[in-house]
Amino acid sequence: MRLLLLNPNTSRDITDLITEAARSVAPASVELTSVTADRGVPYIATRAEAVIGAGVALEILAEREGQYDAAIVAAFGDPGLGAARELFSVPIVGMAEAGMLTACMLGGRFAIVTFAEALGPWYRECVAMHRLDARCAGVLTLDNAFRSVGDVQNERADMLVELARRAVEEHGADVVVLAGAPLAGLARKVRDRIEVPIVDCVAAAVLQAVTLATLNPRAPAAGSFKRPMPKESIGLAKPLADWIGHR
Amino acid sequence: MRLLLLNPNTSRDITDLITEAARSVAPASVELTSVTADRGVPYIATRAEAVIGAGVALEILAEREGQYDAAIVAAFGDPGLGAARELFSVPIVGMAEAGMLTACMLGGRFAIVTFAEALGPWYRECVAMHRLDARCAGVLTLDNAFRSVGDVQNERADMLVELARRAVEEHGADVVVLAGAPLAGLARKVRDRIEVPIVDCVAAAVLQAVTLATLNPRAPAAGSFKRPMPKESIGLAKPLADWIGHR
Amino acid sequence: MRLLLLNPNTSRDITDLITEAARSVAPASVELTSVTADRGVPYIATRAEAVIGAGVALEILAEREGQYDAAIVAAFGDPGLGAARELFSVPIVGMAEAGMLTACMLGGRFAIVTFAEALGPWYRECVAMHRLDARCAGVLTLDNAFRSVGDVQNERADMLVELARRAVEEHGADVVVLAGAPLAGLARKVRDRIEVPIVDCVAAAVLQAVTLATLNPRAPAAGSFKRPMPKESIGLAKPLADWIGHR
Amino acid sequence: MRLLLLNPNTSRDITDLITEAARSVAPASVELTSVTADRGVPYIATRAEAVIGAGVALEILAEREGQYDAAIVAAFGDPGLGAARELFSVPIVGMAEAGMLTACMLGGRFAIVTFAEALGPWYRECVAMHRLDARCAGVLTLDNAFRSVGDVQNERADMLVELARRAVEEHGADVVVLAGAPLAGLARKVRDRIEVPIVDCVAAAVLQAVTLATLNPRAPAAGSFKRPMPKESIGLAKPLADWIGHR
Amino acid sequence: MRLLLLNPNTSRDITDLITEAARSVAPASVELTSVTADRGVPYIATRAEAVIGAGVALEILAEREGQYDAAIVAAFGDPGLGAARELFSVPIVGMAEAGMLTACMLGGRFAIVTFAEALGPWYRECVAMHRLDARCAGVLTLDNAFRSVGDVQNERADMLVELARRAVEEHGADVVVLAGAPLAGLARKVRDRIEVPIVDCVAAAVLQAVTLATLNPRAPAAGSFKRPMPKESIGLAKPLADWIGHR
Amino acid sequence: MRLLLLNPNTSRDITDLITEAARSVAPASVELTSVTADRGVPYIATRAEAVIGAGVALEILAEREGQYDAAIVAAFGDPGLGAARELFSVPIVGMAEAGMLTACMLGGRFAIVTFAEALGPWYRECVAMHRLDARCAGVLTLDNAFRSVGDVQNERADMLVELARRAVEEHGADVVVLAGAPLAGLARKVRDRIEVPIVDCVAAAVLQAVTLATLNPRAPAAGSFKRPMPKESIGLAKPLADWIGHR
Repeated sequence: MRLLLLNPNTSRDITDLITEAARSVAPASVELTSVTADRGVPYIATRAEAVIGAGVALEILAEREGQYDAAIVAAFGDPGLGAARELFSVPIVGMAEAGMLTACMLGGRFAIVTFAEALGPWYRECVAMHRLDARCAGVLTLDNAFRSVGDVQNERADMLVELARRAVEEHGADVVVLAGAPLAGLARKVRDRIEVPIVDCVAAAVLQAVTLATLNPRAPAAGSFKRPMPKESIGLAKPLADWIGHR
Repeated sequence: MRLLLLNPNTSRDITDLITEAARSVAPASVELTSVTADRGVPYIATRAEAVIGAGVALEILAEREGQYDAAIVAAFGDPGLGAARELFSVPIVGMAEAGMLTACMLGGRFAIVTFAEALGPWYRECVAMHRLDARCAGVLTLDNAFRSVGDVQNERADMLVELARRAVEEHGADVVVLAGAPLAGLARKVRDRIEVPIVDCVAAAVLQAVTLATLNPRAPAAGSFKRPMPKESIGLAKPLADWIGHR
Repeated sequence: MRLLLLNPNTSRDITDLITEAARSVAPASVELTSVTADRGVPYIATRAEAVIGAGVALEILAEREGQYDAAIVAAFGDPGLGAARELFSVPIVGMAEAGMLTACMLGGRFAIVTFAEALGPWYRECVAMHRLDARCAGVLTLDNAFRSVGDVQNERADMLVELARRAVEEHGADVVVLAGAPLAGLARKVRDRIEVPIVDCVAAAVLQAVTLATLNPRAPAAGSFKRPMPKESIGLAKPLADWIGHR
Repeated sequence: MRLLLLNPNTSRDITDLITEAARSVAPASVELTSVTADRGVPYIATRAEAVIGAGVALEILAEREGQYDAAIVAAFGDPGLGAARELFSVPIVGMAEAGMLTACMLGGRFAIVTFAEALGPWYRECVAMHRLDARCAGVLTLDNAFRSVGDVQNERADMLVELARRAVEEHGADVVVLAGAPLAGLARKVRDRIEVPIVDCVAAAVLQAVTLATLNPRAPAAGSFKRPMPKESIGLAKPLADWIGHR
Repeated sequence: MRLLLLNPNTSRDITDLITEAARSVAPASVELTSVTADRGVPYIATRAEAVIGAGVALEILAEREGQYDAAIVAAFGDPGLGAARELFSVPIVGMAEAGMLTACMLGGRFAIVTFAEALGPWYRECVAMHRLDARCAGVLTLDNAFRSVGDVQNERADMLVELARRAVEEHGADVVVLAGAPLAGLARKVRDRIEVPIVDCVAAAVLQAVTLATLNPRAPAAGSFKRPMPKESIGLAKPLADWIGHR
Repeated sequence: MRLLLLNPNTSRDITDLITEAARSVAPASVELTSVTADRGVPYIATRAEAVIGAGVALEILAEREGQYDAAIVAAFGDPGLGAARELFSVPIVGMAEAGMLTACMLGGRFAIVTFAEALGPWYRECVAMHRLDARCAGVLTLDNAFRSVGDVQNERADMLVELARRAVEEHGADVVVLAGAPLAGLARKVRDRIEVPIVDCVAAAVLQAVTLATLNPRAPAAGSFKRPMPKESIGLAKPLADWIGHR
C-alpha cells in the first residue's frame, strides 16, 4: 500500500515531524512517501493561507497521481479536501477530519487543543464544515507567541497539557485532539499527563488512510463526488491542468 | 492485538458471517475471537430488543474482560456502546458508528441501506444518537419478508443493489452503508454494481478497532467516560456484577 | 384509572419517596401501584446502569401487563422508555421527558438541577435523546458526596436551592427541573426560595400519565411504535419472553 | 380549579365546540369559563390574523385577571402565548404547544393535520417557535374549500382521516395532532380509523392546564418571564392598560 | 422612491432620532416619511409590548397603503414583520432582520449589544425567529437603569462601548449590532472605539429597504406570503379592516 | 464609490453579462470596474474549480488593492470570500451570500434555481457554509446539457421558469434565487412568469456592496477577521505575496 503524506506547507522540518509520527503507527506493509509544498507559506494558519494551501495540495496530488493508493492532506483544517476527493479516485484523508472522527469513537465530545490563537477561527470553521459542532466541546488555543513552529510542541508542551486539562474540566471534553501538524507525535509523550484519551492527528490520519485503502472503495461514478467532466483551463500547473482536462 | 468480535444476538450463523468478513480485512497480527450471545433474541431489530442486546453485550464484555485489546459490538444500532465505553478501559467499537464515520471520509452524505423495514426506526434513532443527522441522506429499507436472516444477503442482493441506487439517485447519497450484521461481506460482492463507494460495517468496525488499539489511548480518569465508582447490585450476571462492584 | 409507578432501582426508600410525591398530586380516581426492582442497582447513575435498569423496567412492565392503564418509569434518564412504548399498548411516561415537557409550558428554557455530578453525562444525553437541547439552559449538578441517596434531598436542600439560583442567574433558565427520583417532593418545600417555577418530576410524570390515560389513545398499528411481530428468545425473564413471543 | 377557555376568534360556534370538547375531559373539580373574542376575525388563519388575535387574547386575559387559576389560548398557533405568560402570574396554555408536547409522549415524531391550506405556513412557524422541528414529521393540510368553519370537521372527516393516514405512511409520523379549534372533538370520533394515536388539541390543552395548575408553580420573579415593570400606554383596552401599568 | 419609516412606539423623540439616522444614509432620491404610533407604549421592550406594537404596525401600514414603495418597521424585535409581508405587496424591512443580515456580510458571528436587560429575552427570540442562532455570538445588555430612552445613547455610550468590547473579546463576535431604535446614530460616533465593524440598525434598514425597492420584486401570488383571501372582521381600525376585507 | 466586480472565471462574455446587470441597478455615484480572471477555468462549477477560483480572486483583489471601496466576488459559491474578508480592509461581497440574505428579507424560505446539475453539490455546501440551511427550501438544477454558458439564460429560460415554479409548488419556496453569474439579468425578464419574488444575484450583490460601503465599517482590529500578521511566502503572485507579507 502506497501512502502519500502531503504537507501543503513549505516547512521541511514539519514534514520530517509528521513523517516520523506517521511511521510510528503505519503497518510494515505501507510504503510512505512524504512531499513538502514548494510554493505557499511556511505554515497555514488563516483562511487565506488555507485557500493557497488548497490549491497547492491539488497540484501535488495531480503531479503524483497514479503513484499512491491513498493520500493524506497533512494540515489540520483540511485545505482542499472535498476538492481532492472530487478530482481523484483514491481515498484522500484530511488530518482534521480523521482526528475528529477518530475522537468520536473514544467519547461523546472532543476538544481541539492547539498552539496558536490565530488558528482558532479557521479550526472552528473546519468543525462546522464537517458538521461536527454537536460533538465538539470547544477549540482551545494558546495565546502566547512561540519561537519556532517546528519546535513548538517541545517549547509549549506544559502549556498544552494545561490547556487540555482545562478542556476536560471546564468544557466537558471526553477526548482531546491535539491539532496541527507541528504537534505530531506529542500525544504519545504527554499521554499520561492528561486524564482523557488524546488523539494525534497524524497517527489518526495514517490509520484512517490504511482503513480506507483496505476497504478499497470504488471511485464514484455518481453522487456529488464523481469526477467532473473534462474542462479547459488557463495558467494552472501543468499536471493539474492535464488532470482537469482529462488529458 | 487481541480483538473481541461480540455478536449480541443468539444466531451462530450470523457470527460465522461476520467472523469471515472480519478476517478478510484484519491484519495478520490480529488475534480474533468471536462470541455469540447465549441469551437474547436471534436478531436485534427493535428498540426493545436493543435494550436486551445492550445488557447481553455488557455481560459478555465483563466475562471476557482482560482477554481483548479492543472489542466490537457487532449489531448495527450499537446496543450498549456508550455504557461499554464507560465501564471498560479498552476501545469499544460500534458497528453502526464505525460504518457511518468511515463513510463520512468517503463523501458528503451517506445513506444507510438495509434489508428489513422493522430496522428503520431503530437505525434512524442510532443516527441521531451519534449526532450525524446532517451527514445522513436517509435510511432505506426493503419491505418484503425474507426467508432467513442468515441468508438474506444472497436472497435479497438484487433488491439491495436497487435500493442503494435509489439512495444515490433520489436521496443524494455519496456513499452507501450496507447496514446490519447479516449483510457482512455483501459490499465486496456488489461493489461494481453500485455507482458510489459502499461501506461494509463489519470491515469498517474491524479496521477502526485496529486503529483505536494502535493509538493505544489511556483509559479516561476524567470526563464523562471515566469508570464509575464501585457499586453493589442484585441479580446481575456474576462477571458484570463483579466488574461494576470493582471486585 | 390504574397507574403503575415503576422504580427500576432496588431502593425501597426511593420507592416510598416517589409514591408519596405521586399521591400528593394524583386525583382521587387514580389507583396507584408502586413496584421496586428486585434486581439491578440501588440507584441508576450511569449509562451502564441505565442499560441494566432499562432491561429491568421491561421485565416489570411485562410481568404486570394488563394490570395498569398507564405506567411511569420513575428514573430521570427514562431507561427503556422507547422500548416500553414500542412493546406495550398503554401510555408509558418517562420521568425526565414528563418533567422537561411540563417545564416547556412554564417558560422558554429549563435547567436541570440534580444532586450528583455522576448523573450529568447521562442526563445530558437524555436531553439530546428527546431533542430538547434548544430548550435546555443547562444541566447543573452538585459535586460533593452525600451520605444517603434516600435522604439527599434534605441533606443537600440548601445547596440545591443555591444551584437552582445559579441556573437562573448565570444560565438564563426560566424554569428549574429538580431531577432524579431522590428529589421527589422537594420542589414543594423549596418553592418560595427559588425565583422561577420549579418542576417536580414525579408530580409531573403522574399528571402526564393521567393526561395520556384520559386521552385514551389507541395502541399504534402503524408507525415506528407498533408492536413488533412475535419473536423467539433465550434466557429472558419468562413474562417478558412470553410478551415478546406474543404468547 | 377555575379554568378560562379563551377563544381569540369571534365565532361563537367554535367556542361551543371547544367548550364541549373541554368538558368531555375536564375533571369534575374544574370550573370552566369560556369566552369568545368580541373583536377580531371569525377564524385566525394567517400571520396577520394571529397578530390581531394575540392582542385580543391579552385584552381578555387582563379583563378576567384574578378570575381563573389557569387559562387556555384556544387557537392552534398560540397567538400571544409568550406575551401572556410574561404578563400574568397563572399558567397559560397554548393549544398548539399542549397538543404537540402531549404528542411527544406518545411517539417519536408527530404530524400536524388540519383542514385548510392557508393554515400551513402559520402552523409551520409555530412548530419552529416552540423548537420542535426535530419532532415534527410534517404539517399536512387539505386544499379544498369548505362550507363552514364551524362544521368543517363533519364535512371533511373522511378527507382528514385520509390525510392522517398519509402522514403515517408517507411522512413517518408516529402520532397525529388534529390541529385547529374547529377540529375539537373529532379525534374521539375517528380514533379507530387512523392507525396511530391521535391528539385532540383542546383535550390536551385542558389536561395540561389542569397539570400546571395542580403543580401550582410560583409566578417568576426572575428569568425572562418575570412580570415587566409598570409602563404607561396610550389607546389600549382599559383592563390591559391598567394591568401593564400595574394599576 | 417613497420610504415609510414606521415607529411602532409612541415616543416622538425616538422618531426624530431614527429619522435623522435614516436621512444620513438615504440616497437623495429617497422621499422619507416618518410616522409615530398614536397608540401603544413609549418603547417596546417585552413580548407583550411587541404584540401590541405588531398590531399598531399593521394599522399604520394599512392606513398609508399606496403611499410608499417600501416600509421599515423601526423597532428592533421586528414586531409584526411576517404579518406585514403577508398583507402588503411592497417590501417591508425589519430593523433587527436588516441589522443582523447586514452584519452577516461583515464577519462570521455578530453580537447584539443593547441598553436594557429587559430587552434580552425578546431579542434572543427574535434571533431564533429569523433562524440566525448559528451566526449570533450573544445578546449582551446593560443592566443599569437609565434616565430617558430618548437620550440613553449619550448617557450610556461608554458602557455600551465597553459591552461591545466584551462581546468581541469574551464572546468571539466579529461584528457588533447596536440594537434598538434609541441607539440609532450611535454607531457612527463610537466607530473608532470598538475594534470590529459596528452596524447601525436604522442605517442598515434604510439601505436594505432601498435595495429591495430597487430590485422591485413582484408581490407573491403563491407561497406562504401571498396576500390572504378577503376576510370579515369586527372592531379593527377601519383601514386595516378594509385592507383585510379587500375593500 | 468605487466598486470592483471581480469575475474569478476566465470567460469575458460572462463578465460582460454581469457588468450589464450590475450597471442596471448601481446608483449613478458608483464607479464600476470589472475584471476577468486571466488564469483558471471558463466557468467554476465544482469544488476543485472553486479552490482554483478562490486563489485567483485573492490575486486580483491584492493586485487592485487601494483601487476600490468594496468588491464583489462574482461567482455564486463565493470562492475565497472568508479569506478575502480576512485579508482586505474594505467590504467584500459574495454573490451567493448577497443573493440568499436578500432573499431572506422577501419571505421565509428561498430556493436556489440554477442551470447545471454539476453546480448542485457545490451550491448546497455554500448554503451550509453560510449557516442558512433552515432558510433554504432546496437547490434545484436543470439536468440537460446546454450549448454555451454565456447564452444559457436565453437557451434555457423556459426550463428555468418551470423549475422555479416547481420550487414554489413542491418545495414550498417563498422566494427564488436565480443562481450563477450566467443567469445575471434573467430575473428581470421572467419576473412576471414566476409567482413569487425572484432575486438576481448580481443585482443583489451590487446593492449590498453599496449598502456596506455606505455604512463604511472600520477594518477589524480584533475578532476572527482582523488582518493576519505579516508572513513570508514562496511562489505566489507578487501582489498577493506582497500583501500577505505587509510589504
